[in-house]
Amino acid sequence: MPRIVMHPALRREELLDRAQALILQRGYDNVSLNEIIAAAGVSKGAFYHYFPAKDALLEALAERFARQALERIRSIPDVPERDALGRLNAFLARGRQDKVENAGAAWALFEAMFRAENLVLFHRINAAVNALLLPILADMIRDGVRDGVFDTFDPEGAADMILQIGTSTRGIVARALASADSAGMEVAITALERRVRLYEIALDRVLGLEDGSLRLAESGHIRMVMEARHAGRGETPA
Amino acid sequence: MPRIVMHPALRREELLDRAQALILQRGYDNVSLNEIIAAAGVSKGAFYHYFPAKDALLEALAERFARQALERIRSIPDVPERDALGRLNAFLARGRQDKVENAGAAWALFEAMFRAENLVLFHRINAAVNALLLPILADMIRDGVRDGVFDTFDPEGAADMILQIGTSTRGIVARALASADSAGMEVAITALERRVRLYEIALDRVLGLEDGSLRLAESGHIRMVMEARHAGRGETPA
Repeated sequence: MPRIVMHPALRREELLDRAQALILQRGYDNVSLNEIIAAAGVSKGAFYHYFPAKDALLEALAERFARQALERIRSIPDVPERDALGRLNAFLARGRQDKVENAGAAWALFEAMFRAENLVLFHRINAAVNALLLPILADMIRDGVRDGVFDTFDPEGAADMILQIGTSTRGIVARALASADSAGMEVAITALERRVRLYEIALDRVLGLEDGSLRLAESGHIRMVMEARHAGRGETPA
Repeated sequence: MPRIVMHPALRREELLDRAQALILQRGYDNVSLNEIIAAAGVSKGAFYHYFPAKDALLEALAERFARQALERIRSIPDVPERDALGRLNAFLARGRQDKVENAGAAWALFEAMFRAENLVLFHRINAAVNALLLPILADMIRDGVRDGVFDTFDPEGAADMILQIGTSTRGIVARALASADSAGMEVAITALERRVRLYEIALDRVLGLEDGSLRLAESGHIRMVMEARHAGRGETPA
């Protein structure tokens, strides 16, 4: 591969592209750092200039993924007549839609960060993603409080708490992802669906809404995502 | 120190006692594992039999501390005429009272687990403490739902979510503990008080109660605990 002089930011993006392609193809745990460096076609020194270790690369990939998803979601203009609840539900629905459309690309990153041995990495990625989401969610809640749709004395605190409650589903998601057979997956899906319903109602109440106002998942959405993942897992080379 | 043959469980308790005394006197970070082993008066092999590393010892101390606090709190008989909300508030108030009475003993453990470099340890200790609290809180919520005082379709899930929302205050508590001067502490105390108020209202709403029903902290409690800690810090030898 010819070495050409690139702008540092461009070179980092290109490194991420090539690392992501390899990781999505073979799985994060199945690819060594040396293989990633070889596939990126750069020197070790150049690679370590951007990423001190393999987990720093995964963190950067996840952060970039979340940023790109947010840009896609926010590029869709809002329907002007919607109130704050409608705008928040539309934002959440677009997030789900984007996840379905880009599930293949996200999956290998997503699964890796939920492994037990990646707990610290999970919290670092989660903090980075939540830092992107916090101001957007806080703005929506502030608008809703101003319009009398939401009821909280601390929109930014409420946004932070809501993201943190989301983080608290980590254990249940991790167990669902780790389920080895269809019986285990059935139990995991049921537990996850139940927790998402509970989380929806908690969000409604934290924002002073009627139960059933906010939708985090359409009926069957979790099952669809989890079953697609089990079907896809067979295709991943060992 | 004479070597006497002890029952293994007793020896572990005695090791914990001596390690705790040293850690509370000098601070977790200021005591090496070798000093702890020397103070415990056992061989390295005997020590490693119980605790593979220094953080395993801290985890065991924190878990024991939480278990002892729970035993003290639960040994106080309930006022029979209280409803589920009254019982939950009494449980929370006893927890605060116990924290004040045993603040000196808890502080060195508490501070160590909130340091940034101890994030994994924090999550391990937190998971152990929450595992102790979960069945107690779930029982209280179940009773309250049965009596029509609380409103949730999933008492155990609600208990888990409430404990997780508590975990989500980690960042704010950590920042408060790390504040170096009185101006920084003032900002940190204000942020923590505001978040505790938000958390109280979130808990009320998650359980279907009126805002202001549950009390996590009396007015001035957080300030008192934090200021006592700043005063106490000066006494700790470097």
